[in-house]
Amino acid sequence: MSAPLKNDRFLRALLRQPVDETPVWMMRQAGRYLPEYRATRQRAGSFMDLCRNPELACEVTLQPLDRYALDAAILFSDILTVPDAMGLGLSFTQGEGPRFDRPITTLRDIEALAAPDPEVELGYVMDAVRLIRRQLDGRVPLIGFSGSPWTLVTYMVEGGGSKDFGKVKGLMFDQPKAMHRLLTVVATAVRDYLNAQIRAGAQAVMLFDTWGGVLTPTDYRDFSLRYMHEVVSGLIREHDGRTVPVILYTKGGGAWLEAQATTGADALGIDWTLDLSEARARVGDKVALQGNMDPCVLYASDDRVRLEVAKVLESFGHGEGHVFNLGHGIHQHIDPDRVSTFIDSVHELSRPYHAGRT
Amino acid sequence: MSAPLKNDRFLRALLRQPVDETPVWMMRQAGRYLPEYRATRQRAGSFMDLCRNPELACEVTLQPLDRYALDAAILFSDILTVPDAMGLGLSFTQGEGPRFDRPITTLRDIEALAAPDPEVELGYVMDAVRLIRRQLDGRVPLIGFSGSPWTLVTYMVEGGGSKDFGKVKGLMFDQPKAMHRLLTVVATAVRDYLNAQIRAGAQAVMLFDTWGGVLTPTDYRDFSLRYMHEVVSGLIREHDGRTVPVILYTKGGGAWLEAQATTGADALGIDWTLDLSEARARVGDKVALQGNMDPCVLYASDDRVRLEVAKVLESFGHGEGHVFNLGHGIHQHIDPDRVSTFIDSVHELSRPYHAGRT
Repeated sequence: MSAPLKNDRFLRALLRQPVDETPVWMMRQAGRYLPEYRATRQRAGSFMDLCRNPELACEVTLQPLDRYALDAAILFSDILTVPDAMGLGLSFTQGEGPRFDRPITTLRDIEALAAPDPEVELGYVMDAVRLIRRQLDGRVPLIGFSGSPWTLVTYMVEGGGSKDFGKVKGLMFDQPKAMHRLLTVVATAVRDYLNAQIRAGAQAVMLFDTWGGVLTPTDYRDFSLRYMHEVVSGLIREHDGRTVPVILYTKGGGAWLEAQATTGADALGIDWTLDLSEARARVGDKVALQGNMDPCVLYASDDRVRLEVAKVLESFGHGEGHVFNLGHGIHQHIDPDRVSTFIDSVHELSRPYHAGRT
Repeated sequence: MSAPLKNDRFLRALLRQPVDETPVWMMRQAGRYLPEYRATRQRAGSFMDLCRNPELACEVTLQPLDRYALDAAILFSDILTVPDAMGLGLSFTQGEGPRFDRPITTLRDIEALAAPDPEVELGYVMDAVRLIRRQLDGRVPLIGFSGSPWTLVTYMVEGGGSKDFGKVKGLMFDQPKAMHRLLTVVATAVRDYLNAQIRAGAQAVMLFDTWGGVLTPTDYRDFSLRYMHEVVSGLIREHDGRTVPVILYTKGGGAWLEAQATTGADALGIDWTLDLSEARARVGDKVALQGNMDPCVLYASDDRVRLEVAKVLESFGHGEGHVFNLGHGIHQHIDPDRVSTFIDSVHELSRPYHAGRT
């Protein structure tokens, strides 16, 4: 049996249940802006060495919780572990981001792909999840995650990051059947991977659709949303006596919230290009919302940070269903002290929005 | 007196007047996908050497017109010529895009800035415009352009391209007054620059707001749209007996079309993340629309290109006010023969949408 959860604000807000304060966490909260992260990273070796070492992955997962009053922990890992486990060979080059040694270049490459066994090829992730849960000892819930099928496929075909997505979209426009075959196997792999994380102890899971926003409305529906829907439909939704909420986040996907709300996800991540008031009006009480302060606000003064936190809280307004977050990952050059101001402001300034509701 | 215009479809469509076929041009139509461009570029030296040489800039401007039935020419230049003329020192590094030798780093840098005299510091652009007009001899209209004030400022503060816009947004959040001062002087410079292009012979002008889409709705209004509005309000709108239409294009700005339509621009550029049918429903008959095929469609087969052209035409529907374009610049690896298919398809497939209207 796992330890009872001492702070369940995050899970409650995702399920649109009353809370005393708006829960808050940050995408990339375990990361380079923290000197203690940089020290652990240096001991680990490469970024993937750190991901593959459960003890060190656990250590960096917990680091931001020791500094800040965060309401959730997120597994330290990468969105691209699944294609790495499929044999594409992931590495990270200094300043240039992810690279695959063996990208998908032919139809034969697609036919040769199979969904990995997450307890085998991704056993290091499950070991990390189990260890983090033990060390968390019920302080806050643990979030598991993966890249969305479309997002994984962009990297698998491009061989790394891209500016214009010429290769992956070229394949999509020219060989749509092959693209659907590729997405189908990746969606199965993502589903199995997230279910294994849930069995290992992840108490909520998030799909990062980093590149869904580069598609047309029709292509987003057919090549990204459809496969996220498939993943969500296949997820374990009750584990260890609790509902396991699912968060879906398409960066730059604010135009398609209504469609995202029909996937069965409990919450939608929102970037800063959309006001929460508008997002809430559009999705109603179908889903909770997570977001959405511009991460660049954290370059400004404490006063300005408080003001922007207040604006985001006011934009969502009173009532249930808001998890505060940045609209994207925290930047590496942010002052860790500014983050204290940010997190504390969310708790302090959000109380009036929940008064009399718990 | 300039030669009479033989093909004015483009100007008519921008003013929502009837045409026989939907006019079409491509952002970056004079560019690296054309072998003749690469040959001229090699003769010229650096990218900026090519921009600064009116004869060669004229040559590459006309190259795509000799291959394709395009309805407009666009001045070969760069969106960053204005800050270069303000003394920041623009260059282009292989594969890494624009760099400024002297970026804006202090408040003193901002105070020292002044709008250049476009006939002096940017005389090479005006010489190119005059030469291109003579050589065009009325075949099609010539488009002049500039980056939007916000977009220019992102490069001026970041010193080049950026992934997260930490420096420029840091300044915006931390020193909003300084940012407004910077945008004010840049907006004046852009206005003067576009007016000089119009006097030299540009028959329509376009503002490229490449980075407006990275802002929150409020910050877009206050830091990007407001200054584009200022620029548009100060432009010469009648020259040489013709209206000079203005096109405003915010990449990733589809959520804010209604606000863009109130700037006085005649047309809005639309990227592919929004259907033209929805865009048209939202702006009504306030403005024309320009766009919006995903440039990656051109990696696919001729049949697929025709199909996607048909979809975009159908999405806009019957009637006035559509200029066909890609949603962003054409990519360098596109096969020039595919572009013929694209351009010819627009003309051929659009006729039924205009039948009985001219």
